[in-house]
Amino acid sequence: MRVLILGGDGYLGWPTATYFSSLGHEVLVVDNYYRRLIAEATDSAPLFETPLLSERCRLYKEFSGKEIACRIGDLSKPEFIFSVFEEFKPETIVHYAEQPSAPYSMRGFSEARETLQNNLDVTFNCLWAMIKYTPDAHLIKLGTMGEYGTPDIDIPEGWIDIEKNGRKDKFLFPRAAGSLYHTTKVLDTDLIWFYVRTYGLSVTDLMQGPVYGLNTFEDDMPDNLYPNFHYDDIFGTVVNRFLVQAVAGIPLTVYGKGGQTRGYLNLKDTLQCVELAAQNPSQPGELRIFNQLTETFTVNEIAERIVNAANTMGISAEIKSITNPRKEKEEHYYNPAYSGLMELGLKPNFMTDDVLCKMLTQILKHKSRISNDRVMPRVSWS
Amino acid sequence: MRVLILGGDGYLGWPTATYFSSLGHEVLVVDNYYRRLIAEATDSAPLFETPLLSERCRLYKEFSGKEIACRIGDLSKPEFIFSVFEEFKPETIVHYAEQPSAPYSMRGFSEARETLQNNLDVTFNCLWAMIKYTPDAHLIKLGTMGEYGTPDIDIPEGWIDIEKNGRKDKFLFPRAAGSLYHTTKVLDTDLIWFYVRTYGLSVTDLMQGPVYGLNTFEDDMPDNLYPNFHYDDIFGTVVNRFLVQAVAGIPLTVYGKGGQTRGYLNLKDTLQCVELAAQNPSQPGELRIFNQLTETFTVNEIAERIVNAANTMGISAEIKSITNPRKEKEEHYYNPAYSGLMELGLKPNFMTDDVLCKMLTQILKHKSRISNDRVMPRVSWS
Repeated sequence: MRVLILGGDGYLGWPTATYFSSLGHEVLVVDNYYRRLIAEATDSAPLFETPLLSERCRLYKEFSGKEIACRIGDLSKPEFIFSVFEEFKPETIVHYAEQPSAPYSMRGFSEARETLQNNLDVTFNCLWAMIKYTPDAHLIKLGTMGEYGTPDIDIPEGWIDIEKNGRKDKFLFPRAAGSLYHTTKVLDTDLIWFYVRTYGLSVTDLMQGPVYGLNTFEDDMPDNLYPNFHYDDIFGTVVNRFLVQAVAGIPLTVYGKGGQTRGYLNLKDTLQCVELAAQNPSQPGELRIFNQLTETFTVNEIAERIVNAANTMGISAEIKSITNPRKEKEEHYYNPAYSGLMELGLKPNFMTDDVLCKMLTQILKHKSRISNDRVMPRVSWS
Repeated sequence: MRVLILGGDGYLGWPTATYFSSLGHEVLVVDNYYRRLIAEATDSAPLFETPLLSERCRLYKEFSGKEIACRIGDLSKPEFIFSVFEEFKPETIVHYAEQPSAPYSMRGFSEARETLQNNLDVTFNCLWAMIKYTPDAHLIKLGTMGEYGTPDIDIPEGWIDIEKNGRKDKFLFPRAAGSLYHTTKVLDTDLIWFYVRTYGLSVTDLMQGPVYGLNTFEDDMPDNLYPNFHYDDIFGTVVNRFLVQAVAGIPLTVYGKGGQTRGYLNLKDTLQCVELAAQNPSQPGELRIFNQLTETFTVNEIAERIVNAANTMGISAEIKSITNPRKEKEEHYYNPAYSGLMELGLKPNFMTDDVLCKMLTQILKHKSRISNDRVMPRVSWS
């Protein structure tokens, strides 16, 4: 299968590329290093440096013997993305090419504008590239569970039947996200659904929860082929950030009451989910939506699990509630459905002590690189 | 009241400006002539030329003695819109500054991209200009009934309570529009709702049906102060286009079966609705939504009414169904609520024979300017 990975330099883009390559697919990765640039601009260096994308492809070939093709360019520029589709003719497109940080999108006008324009433009151009060059291809788009927000009713997998006054119809579940970043994904979904139903495109939209982890199924890869790993308040997801705080001897910073519940998944499960979607494409004219998570936790529960795992390794960690920089409910109902990907064959890798301890061990190797200034919230919603 | 009208050169923007000015408000109009430009680019000249906006302001002062201030510039450029807000400090903002044509947005990639970028950027910049310079101002945003599409259940005024499994919450009614233009308004609504609930802005979103008419409450205005009036397939709304077809002796072009039902309103009622919204602002943090229409018709019913009105004036008109260039249901359920603006005091001007005959008389004066090439569909959805 010819697999095009948009945003192939990212935390999930790169391991997706190596995973599909290891399975024997023909892979092309594309990126413009926008995330590297804004991470540097906000003093949010990752825990360890990762080589540039072309260099990673070269190193991966040394390691595996397999070729991953690479193009560097800005997918928000139509002429560039069109040339990529025209030349590579992808059968499957995995679209990660978005500004991925909620706090970055809430930092101020410029960052909000960049996020809106980049995320919408890339999605829009990608849909048109499909219409023009690969109308039969299957787009796997990474959405986020954050699109739904925290409604007081059960969250279905994307769609809802609504009955009123004896009549019934099916709709996209109404979304209300908690940051501008998450809101751009809501807009993506609306835009995708319009083009899917109007031009018969085939799209799977994966509503993903926060991902944690460093390891892929290629356990024996050298360090310079690992995913980039952010632990700061802007680009680091909560589990990864807490683990680094535990190693650094900084209290785990729970925002507010810590009752915020979300659905989480291991990086390995992201790879499984994307592959399952690729192997089982949606129909033409179908926008298929899966909720991509394997278990739900409150922030307090995550902090406690990490403290316990750290303790078993002789690391003493503590938890400290700080003023919540975000505007969000700190205690709320949360009941998302997530059976679709399980039914396709997902075998979850849960957040066990083993998994957390393995990550702690890996982080310990880079302890000297941890900058304590990067873990406290630097962006407020108000 | 200081009233800022974004898109003040448009079919609705200009009469809104003179109406608010005639009521004694301080009015500033802003436009960049984008609609004039793309109307010329698509060979869609209006029925009669209207002077440039600064000249209309000068002519209006001669006519009424009242000053309307004018700035020409591109509201998708942050520095420009910020300077407008900083200097004028509006109390009420009326936002019409969007690419308004569904067929234009479906013409091809470039037109779709222009529509998405212009409409989203202006709305986004406007929200940020409010946050920065006038956080207590009231934004009146023109949405469209087309955001909802044609669901098989009743359409409420913007919001819906959903009950599932014994739990309940309130949501934006899920939208599914029929063109990219209409979809940009769905994205606008999502974006506005995010900034309203996060920063406490005050917004009224008017879901407007297709507007018809030439006359405002200032009946005695000279011709060069009339709203611009498009009758072509791209920029002309259906009632206006049918009236011109009747005058030109061309069959009224009903798309497909003609059972498409929409909510319509007279231009005078748009003016009333916007003024009622301005006089009764929404609360901080409230996104108030009204459905702005006064009666619903199928396309066939509209065509028949126009044929009848034309007959009473001795104009013989006929109706001809043509292949539908759009992708839409041609027979469907349609039951929108629209009591909110009535409760605020709207006194509807219905689509009577009198109203239609007065318009036919006005159009007859310009009969020699009608170009028959402009009324057949030039853009297909497929």
